[in-house]
Amino acid sequence: MPGSIDIRITVNDVGPRDGLQNQRKILAPAHRVKLVSALLDAGLDHVEVGAFVSPKAVPAMVDTDRVLAELLTGDRQNNPVLTVLVPNLRGYELAAAAGAKSVCMVLYGSEGMAQANANMTREQADTVAGEILERARGDGIRVTSTIAVAFECPYDGKVDPGLVRETARWFLDLGTDELCIADTIGAADPWQVRSLTRKLAEEHGTDRLSCHFHDTRAMGLANVFAACESGIRKFDASIAGMGGCPFAPGASGNVATEDVVMMLEQRGYETGIDLDRLVRAADLARELTGTAPGGRASAWLKQARSAR
Amino acid sequence: MPGSIDIRITVNDVGPRDGLQNQRKILAPAHRVKLVSALLDAGLDHVEVGAFVSPKAVPAMVDTDRVLAELLTGDRQNNPVLTVLVPNLRGYELAAAAGAKSVCMVLYGSEGMAQANANMTREQADTVAGEILERARGDGIRVTSTIAVAFECPYDGKVDPGLVRETARWFLDLGTDELCIADTIGAADPWQVRSLTRKLAEEHGTDRLSCHFHDTRAMGLANVFAACESGIRKFDASIAGMGGCPFAPGASGNVATEDVVMMLEQRGYETGIDLDRLVRAADLARELTGTAPGGRASAWLKQARSAR
Repeated sequence: MPGSIDIRITVNDVGPRDGLQNQRKILAPAHRVKLVSALLDAGLDHVEVGAFVSPKAVPAMVDTDRVLAELLTGDRQNNPVLTVLVPNLRGYELAAAAGAKSVCMVLYGSEGMAQANANMTREQADTVAGEILERARGDGIRVTSTIAVAFECPYDGKVDPGLVRETARWFLDLGTDELCIADTIGAADPWQVRSLTRKLAEEHGTDRLSCHFHDTRAMGLANVFAACESGIRKFDASIAGMGGCPFAPGASGNVATEDVVMMLEQRGYETGIDLDRLVRAADLARELTGTAPGGRASAWLKQARSAR
Repeated sequence: MPGSIDIRITVNDVGPRDGLQNQRKILAPAHRVKLVSALLDAGLDHVEVGAFVSPKAVPAMVDTDRVLAELLTGDRQNNPVLTVLVPNLRGYELAAAAGAKSVCMVLYGSEGMAQANANMTREQADTVAGEILERARGDGIRVTSTIAVAFECPYDGKVDPGLVRETARWFLDLGTDELCIADTIGAADPWQVRSLTRKLAEEHGTDRLSCHFHDTRAMGLANVFAACESGIRKFDASIAGMGGCPFAPGASGNVATEDVVMMLEQRGYETGIDLDRLVRAADLARELTGTAPGGRASAWLKQARSAR
């Protein structure tokens, strides 16, 4: 067993953003709030609840201001970290105006993905993100800097880990609250993950590092395991394995939150999340979207409960 | 990358046995032969092709003698290792009479599973297996000794790793050609797998060790990774992720052969298996059974090929 300091792991559910933006069905704000509420009820205290992006490019994220306003009302237990994704300064301003206390911005491991996702060069994306970070620090807003396609890009192929480490160093030095290594298309294998996360952990410690995996090639949990062994203590995951990326061909769902929690809790890590309630949230995601694939934990847990 | 001696990994497809015995549909011998042939054509040289078990208990394995006879006819490339499962001495005798050159016999990590699966105590199962092993050595037949429920049992719960190591030592000392650690119900996490396989590798080297995982809790590839890092160089897997266990409630499919091969080849290990042909074998398994779930590799590879 890991030592007592080390056993707490935070799971950030990105389903209401990364998941819902990739479903064909566009959910009403009330349904998005319902899904986030189910996650909070299960004990999650980090949820990515939406994005301030172009309504034309990502119609499912329209009305994120209404979702956020609804969620910020009333007393949420444990003051959860409700994050919204902002692709640029305009998005940041909308998020700040809507009362966001935590934003996530996107950096790129490749030129091809920067162009496809943001119509910018990598350098332009870095500059924009630097500006957002400065503004957010002034505004007292928490910032996650996510390096997308940190292992492989659907356009440019393998990504140079040295370049990812440079970008990570830059934004950690600038004072980002969190630096997330994202395997946006689910291409990484656990050896690659271990290699990169070990180096990052050695260079920066793990307090501000997190990882984001997709299960496209069935290696989602293997990658969580590998990163966990490097000392990473925060993971993105998506309820019911929803997800993908509209601008990343071949990406399939994020690693399912219920599967990540099942594995970590089995090992004795503490996520603070109730797996039975989480499975109910996964059921809700399936009910609302009609397409959420669902992780393995649901079937396993339901069988285990019925066998009692 | 691993050193050059170390990069060859053998994948043993157990789908035609562990997979087909758990499908509702019973395949005709000709279809079973077709499936095995597709696997051999994809480059697999280890396949578990059937079982000499009670037709009443496992009707899908009836006519394994005919399947074997058909497969042993003609010149098979590379003289593949075609294994049949034998639960007892009677099964062994039938297998030997049918011309089997390789048999797999089952040991148990728990009393509950020994009772449910074989109606024996663990000790009785060990005794029977010892007799089979002695006979097989005299007959020049290759023997794999599989320790079922080596991590957790659906009846007795967690399994003592010390007991598994004792059983492993016993059968390695008796001269088994292969000792397979099987997570029959897919309950193990990669930390457990690493711990047990490391100790076994230290005690015995890895030449005769193999592992068998199910993906019930989504940790199948994580467990392959963990065992691979302990030096294990042979893995059971099942085409299209077919599998389960008729006497192990809650077990779902074996880890999919195509997913295991995809991960290992991506890392640079050499399996000798052609992934495109393997995906065609997975398609065939789905076509023949109507129920094979399929691994992730199929969708990923088809998308990757179409994007070219």
